[in-house]
Amino acid sequence: MRDALEAAIEQEPVSDIEARGDRITAIAGHTSADVLAEAIAGLETDELRTVLAALGSERSADVLEELEPEEAADVLQQLTDADAADVLEEMDPDDATDVFQEMREDDAPGAERVLAQMEADEAEDVRQLLRYAEDTAGGIMTTDFLVVPAGASVQEAITLLRVPADDELPPESASYLYVTEDGGKLVGVVPWHRLVRAGERVSVSALMEPQTVTVPASADQELVANVVREHRLIAVPVVDEMGRLVGIVTADDVADVVEEETTEDIERLGGSQPLDQPYLRAGPLTLAKKRAGWLLLLFLGATYTGTVLSHFQAELEKAVALAFFIPLLIGTGGNVGSQTVMTVIRAMAVGEVEFKDLFRVWRKEAGTALLLGALMAAAGAARAWLLGVDMAMIATVAITAAVIVVWSATIAAVLPLLLRRVRVDPAVVSAPLITTLVDGTGLFLYFEIARYLLDL
Amino acid sequence: MRDALEAAIEQEPVSDIEARGDRITAIAGHTSADVLAEAIAGLETDELRTVLAALGSERSADVLEELEPEEAADVLQQLTDADAADVLEEMDPDDATDVFQEMREDDAPGAERVLAQMEADEAEDVRQLLRYAEDTAGGIMTTDFLVVPAGASVQEAITLLRVPADDELPPESASYLYVTEDGGKLVGVVPWHRLVRAGERVSVSALMEPQTVTVPASADQELVANVVREHRLIAVPVVDEMGRLVGIVTADDVADVVEEETTEDIERLGGSQPLDQPYLRAGPLTLAKKRAGWLLLLFLGATYTGTVLSHFQAELEKAVALAFFIPLLIGTGGNVGSQTVMTVIRAMAVGEVEFKDLFRVWRKEAGTALLLGALMAAAGAARAWLLGVDMAMIATVAITAAVIVVWSATIAAVLPLLLRRVRVDPAVVSAPLITTLVDGTGLFLYFEIARYLLDL
Repeated sequence: MRDALEAAIEQEPVSDIEARGDRITAIAGHTSADVLAEAIAGLETDELRTVLAALGSERSADVLEELEPEEAADVLQQLTDADAADVLEEMDPDDATDVFQEMREDDAPGAERVLAQMEADEAEDVRQLLRYAEDTAGGIMTTDFLVVPAGASVQEAITLLRVPADDELPPESASYLYVTEDGGKLVGVVPWHRLVRAGERVSVSALMEPQTVTVPASADQELVANVVREHRLIAVPVVDEMGRLVGIVTADDVADVVEEETTEDIERLGGSQPLDQPYLRAGPLTLAKKRAGWLLLLFLGATYTGTVLSHFQAELEKAVALAFFIPLLIGTGGNVGSQTVMTVIRAMAVGEVEFKDLFRVWRKEAGTALLLGALMAAAGAARAWLLGVDMAMIATVAITAAVIVVWSATIAAVLPLLLRRVRVDPAVVSAPLITTLVDGTGLFLYFEIARYLLDL
Repeated sequence: MRDALEAAIEQEPVSDIEARGDRITAIAGHTSADVLAEAIAGLETDELRTVLAALGSERSADVLEELEPEEAADVLQQLTDADAADVLEEMDPDDATDVFQEMREDDAPGAERVLAQMEADEAEDVRQLLRYAEDTAGGIMTTDFLVVPAGASVQEAITLLRVPADDELPPESASYLYVTEDGGKLVGVVPWHRLVRAGERVSVSALMEPQTVTVPASADQELVANVVREHRLIAVPVVDEMGRLVGIVTADDVADVVEEETTEDIERLGGSQPLDQPYLRAGPLTLAKKRAGWLLLLFLGATYTGTVLSHFQAELEKAVALAFFIPLLIGTGGNVGSQTVMTVIRAMAVGEVEFKDLFRVWRKEAGTALLLGALMAAAGAARAWLLGVDMAMIATVAITAAVIVVWSATIAAVLPLLLRRVRVDPAVVSAPLITTLVDGTGLFLYFEIARYLLDL
């Protein structure tokens, strides 16, 4: 389908935009919003205007909701203010706010002009949501939700709900029916199926679950994600300081938060600062900035290996063969450290492991390292023997391999938990950091063992 | 709250189990299921029986749903068959099936005895679900869902839905109302709020969205997760080969799948095979088995570094100072490779980058590497100068640093995309693999540059 759309766009000369618009619209009618979103991202301004005009503002809004907020902002900024305002009105208020925030970063007066052209209600929703920081419950919540007063009967609730019948809510926003007291204080939630199954004269408050799980508007988005995940919710209500219901965060928005936070964790584990934007949008200068800090710090750390080596220069000159095994041994230490640290940090991120499990984790990893250490000692001995060095050298390599494996696993298992204890994000313990730590200390162990066994 | 519970458990002598049970129950009434789940995990058999008996089978089921299936199976196996059957009956059928599968792995005849004691309906649900492989749509779906016939009016639908009024569905299972034709073929879905808002004589089929998004029962769970995420669904219907509705997969189960798949990705990126079980449950032997394969393979790869070093033995003996910079230079190469590969593979996992972006990714990473290469050349030169080596040596270290950075970033950016192209899971390209690849080739570059600049 996307190929067909692209073919339609490519087929005609650029000048014949009207005809192309018609053709695109004809295809677009049968195409899902996410496919259209990908297709329009590459269009020129004129083409874009034609296509969005043909789609109409409601369907355009669906399509833009599929894009990243930055991309959607780029698209809207190519439309007239009035057209952009029409599309924003049709978007979910939380998505519209994200897009508006991006527009304001690019061109603040332009964004204000668009906001001024929006219908008063929708503009007010966006203004409300703009008050919250981007990464809080308030920043990711939507103001589209359904609410009935606690005093109502089922019959009255249904009548109330029928009023804005033209207002079609997305299903994730309509998954709960909230119950509030006078003044807007949230007191409970009624599952739909219970409302439908109940008699008409039953009171709403008799059907409701007294709502206990809420998040404050100022709560960090990661906390919100944990609440939704732990309680297996479809949506969590967001309340202000007075306990008034101000919005809801839905499971699909939580999935976005989890994805974002996991991406940050993985980028940190690789040894860079999180990008905070989609990879393809980050230019080389941004990427270099995010990586340079750790790279220099690790370089500084690694100079210690040179210090160790020059400290043992005499030994190295007496037995140059020692140098052959340096990359092999510290490489193995780094590999074991990387395996261990990634597993442990992930277990911490999903909440399986906490500081109180420190001893248990260390015992498990030490046991594993003893097994792997024996294996790598054998592999090291075999390799040394193949290179034709003498028995003492073979023993040195084998013993060092085992010692480095155990040492590396210990650091990688214990360090993230200790950092969590002192409230440092354990994801700063990256694979490169462990590798670098093991490089220097591993070399020291190697030469000390060599000095003893080789009589240097 | 959990502390209070634990205190209650610790306070009394083990013999006085009845009194402790009462106290635990008193506290448990005010404690959420997930907190209770954590607290009961550590109890002895006798205590466990007392606590679960006091909680009753419905609340026990809530608590066990919070545990991993393996842990829940362990708990149930400590109860009598009849008690275990009572608790399983109260669990969601998909959760009950997962737990039953674990029980069967431990003790097949015991598990069958429990199944035989369950009510016929609930046992049949479990038997149905057992037919599907664990990691397919059928394996993760639940058979708890609501359905009305296409011919019904709103009034008739509500009457039908009222029948099993004692049967309280979890909200995520009740978020959609499905519409089927005679024979069970799925034809659409009615949002609750639309049903409530409509007149009683309106036909259900006039209100429904003709349902297009479904997944076959045999679909891989990762595909299911992608469908739910892309279409931002709360639940996706699962159909058999005839298009009949057989179950639904809810957003909270999808969140579990995504978490599991991400954990596997991260474990692979660290250079081990995925654990397929919670970290704290994996013993040292299991951990060692998952890591040994890659460790040996990487060791074999790393022997190439020794070969390179012995190939350049003459050069190394003429200029032993060359050895000082080996760990520093190949360490930097490994660090850049690790930063790059983790970012690129994550971007691929979330669908931001595909094979068609190969050139774009390479250009971006090459640009970044040129910037970082210049930086690391300066850092390398400074370090060499501090160690008091001559100008030619300083130049060798600086140029090698820049070349290794660019080389490492190129491999790390291009290799995962090429592997995806030939349908190999790009997550086999781990940080340790890139580090090992760069170690050998980086050394070769280093000595070639040294030979030229130092006139060796």
